[in-house]
Amino acid sequence: MLDRFDPRLDPLPPAPDRGKLIRRLSRVLPRKALIVKAEGMRVFETDGLAAYRGMPAVVTLPGDTEEVRAVLEVCRDLGAAVVARGAGTGLSGGALPVPGCVLLGLSRMSRILDIDPVACLARVQPGVRNLAVSEAARPFGLFYAPDPSSQLACSLGGNVAENAGGVHCLKYGLTVNNVQGLEVVTMDGEILRLGGETLDAPGFDLLALLTGSEGLLGIVTEITVRLTPLPEATQVLLAAFPETRQAGQAVADIIGAGIIPAGLEMMDKLALTAAEAHTRAGYPLDAAAILLCELDGAPADIACDLERVRGICESAGASLARIARDESERQLFWAGRKGAFPAMGRIAPDYYCIDGVIPRRALPEVLDAIERLSREFGLAVANVFHAGDGNLHPLILYDAQAPGELERAEALGGAILELCVAKGGSITGEHGVGREKINQMCAQFAPAELETFAALKRAFDPQGLLNPGKAIPTLQRCVDHGAMHVHAATPSFAHLDRF
Amino acid sequence: MLDRFDPRLDPLPPAPDRGKLIRRLSRVLPRKALIVKAEGMRVFETDGLAAYRGMPAVVTLPGDTEEVRAVLEVCRDLGAAVVARGAGTGLSGGALPVPGCVLLGLSRMSRILDIDPVACLARVQPGVRNLAVSEAARPFGLFYAPDPSSQLACSLGGNVAENAGGVHCLKYGLTVNNVQGLEVVTMDGEILRLGGETLDAPGFDLLALLTGSEGLLGIVTEITVRLTPLPEATQVLLAAFPETRQAGQAVADIIGAGIIPAGLEMMDKLALTAAEAHTRAGYPLDAAAILLCELDGAPADIACDLERVRGICESAGASLARIARDESERQLFWAGRKGAFPAMGRIAPDYYCIDGVIPRRALPEVLDAIERLSREFGLAVANVFHAGDGNLHPLILYDAQAPGELERAEALGGAILELCVAKGGSITGEHGVGREKINQMCAQFAPAELETFAALKRAFDPQGLLNPGKAIPTLQRCVDHGAMHVHAATPSFAHLDRF
Repeated sequence: MLDRFDPRLDPLPPAPDRGKLIRRLSRVLPRKALIVKAEGMRVFETDGLAAYRGMPAVVTLPGDTEEVRAVLEVCRDLGAAVVARGAGTGLSGGALPVPGCVLLGLSRMSRILDIDPVACLARVQPGVRNLAVSEAARPFGLFYAPDPSSQLACSLGGNVAENAGGVHCLKYGLTVNNVQGLEVVTMDGEILRLGGETLDAPGFDLLALLTGSEGLLGIVTEITVRLTPLPEATQVLLAAFPETRQAGQAVADIIGAGIIPAGLEMMDKLALTAAEAHTRAGYPLDAAAILLCELDGAPADIACDLERVRGICESAGASLARIARDESERQLFWAGRKGAFPAMGRIAPDYYCIDGVIPRRALPEVLDAIERLSREFGLAVANVFHAGDGNLHPLILYDAQAPGELERAEALGGAILELCVAKGGSITGEHGVGREKINQMCAQFAPAELETFAALKRAFDPQGLLNPGKAIPTLQRCVDHGAMHVHAATPSFAHLDRF
Repeated sequence: MLDRFDPRLDPLPPAPDRGKLIRRLSRVLPRKALIVKAEGMRVFETDGLAAYRGMPAVVTLPGDTEEVRAVLEVCRDLGAAVVARGAGTGLSGGALPVPGCVLLGLSRMSRILDIDPVACLARVQPGVRNLAVSEAARPFGLFYAPDPSSQLACSLGGNVAENAGGVHCLKYGLTVNNVQGLEVVTMDGEILRLGGETLDAPGFDLLALLTGSEGLLGIVTEITVRLTPLPEATQVLLAAFPETRQAGQAVADIIGAGIIPAGLEMMDKLALTAAEAHTRAGYPLDAAAILLCELDGAPADIACDLERVRGICESAGASLARIARDESERQLFWAGRKGAFPAMGRIAPDYYCIDGVIPRRALPEVLDAIERLSREFGLAVANVFHAGDGNLHPLILYDAQAPGELERAEALGGAILELCVAKGGSITGEHGVGREKINQMCAQFAPAELETFAALKRAFDPQGLLNPGKAIPTLQRCVDHGAMHVHAATPSFAHLDRF
């Protein structure tokens, strides 16, 4: 297990008197919006990073903005920590309860308030599921582009908090590029309305600042997202390569040619072998790596660009580069990719999904270095990732029942992230920092930058009640973690020398 | 003239002892980097909003990041206000000197540090001209997309400070969507490195926060921008309409059809008449409004989409919809548009350019309302604007020599901006708030939102030295201005009832 919350290293407020907390909350919330019994709270103990658990003091499920404001007021008065939670699918422990906190679940605020097909906008409550937006927009020929793997379950509020990504984000942008307005309740009880129907707004860009702020600055109670016209047609090309390095080269060449795929995904041998066993997608088992390159748009453009992609892949050394013959084969190619994570269950009892980003040009050498680290730590690593934007998802395979393996998996994960930083990259592409990567923030940022984050946090939340101990480490934590900051490509501390 | 700086309403620091300031600065700057004589400082008295003037205490022109830091250190020690300036082409008075300030000009930091054609990135100093980036990138088949009209002269540092736009931003995004990294010196002397070669970064989105922060949060000393592949081909269609309303409808229909033009510009009768007299672009003088719709990409796609655009324009009632017959006619069509502002000199001695944004669907009614306001204030208004993203540029025609006309022009400008807010829009699309629109911020934002801006400002600049009296009004100013906040589409104060 990674670090427990530590009052010396994490800025946790003292747990308030629980009885008083419950009495105050029950005055402002209907009965169904307040859960105080342990068995009812159990489901809120963890999020998608299931190795971590914690019990809140109480769970609240407000039904509207006014109830959110009322909960925050009680917490402010009593000095209680507040941890917001969407669908609980996050992978970095962002919704992990801190000791004595009020868990604030947004699941009851799940209405789609408006679809405006002329302005191409949808206005939704934070508990609305990601895929539900696209479903509601489909009759108008529109969809919501950012598509995390968990899109069936994850909520828009959580997407905003983590600035979620997905396969389509290479072409259509991350959550921050598709959110156009937010209603936010701040810790001092103010309701901010940021952005809206028009594209630009004066003043500081609070909309971008709140997006990806991981529940540290305010509670999002309404979201206006941009909808994108459904493409006329979609096609996918599968390319197989004898060497991983060649696949990396093809990625660089496709992007370098000015082609912007709707998705450009890579799987290495271990990942594609497991996926093929799981899904029978028709992946070539003799390949060292495969690419899936999806293009969407007008049929004539796609046909033209697919031929260019095929040529690029062949020049890079592909042994196979073929276009899905029909829609059902296209779906099958993607089913293999989407099933790659669960497919890991065939080759190991547990896996730990890492989320680093690197400059595309560093792809081949970072894949080599991950392989070296994998041998060094004695744990297999499968790679399935958004190659087009350099967003790696190494899956570390381990057995939680084997003594020490979880710890070794976490140490290997940390080493991979610090490798990404050393190569000019970043420790998270779409999963957020949360509790999981708080120590790696010390490698990503210099003290001056961390201090700026902290000053910003204080500006919004002077008591430090919103999701404390997450995302932004204290300088003391960094000192204890022993990490010094490295700036891109100039590693200056010893344990990175091996890269 | 709009309000003078007023120590009661604007948070200006007291002017420091000028002799001491000069002595301290001369110790940290080379002789050429320090201007203290009035005749040398005269050129820095004003920016593109030339109706406002002010003399700084001293002008500094640091040559590198270290000198910028040294200047800020002196200002911090002596409590001097700091006003940053790029090329001085800004239209909202962002670089207007405040009384007793140190003007910090970035013009000597004008080197292109690196062009990386593989990663499609350019790393530049803040004084580099916008167009120079595209010129340097052209040999690699790349360009820098955001293109303010002033792109020949304006600097990247200024573009970042104002989150500058331009004709191409409809398709390629504003500055904030094209900046990938910043080096920033903060008022407390820290050097922040934000973003970089990879697309996402953990922590709060300081990159977006700093972009468009109008010199209030820090001084940008290095910028990494994304470069875009030059399109294979470019074409433009000119459509003429008997009624302005029809042109507005065509804009909505083009966007609604999922076509994303590289530029979609509208000119009304007054503007196109003046432009035609100035440039002889071949605009039809019997039209009430014209649209220029530019498409770029692969030749086959453009041909297909241009026919769709032509059909849409004709359905909306266009009396003419024709594609430029060759590249020289295309250039001529644009020359008319680009010359539209100077062409105003033919019909009035002076003009005042407004920069409001509205939801596209409100275009026809807002144009009607502007016409009513124009009659009410007795000043002609020509409209030339980025129709595709709802970014209006009403040009108010007046004569500065005629007593009271400048004041009337400013009052009309303010009324137009408040109209934009009342229709769910915003008071600036690309020019920034600066000094010009500080009172309209009171209409745009509620006190809670303004207080959040102020808290953020304090987090970066507790002494309030960076560009004081700009962009973010004090609550006292809003009380004095008599404006109350209206939220989109629900005007609640009397003087807006007429809309």
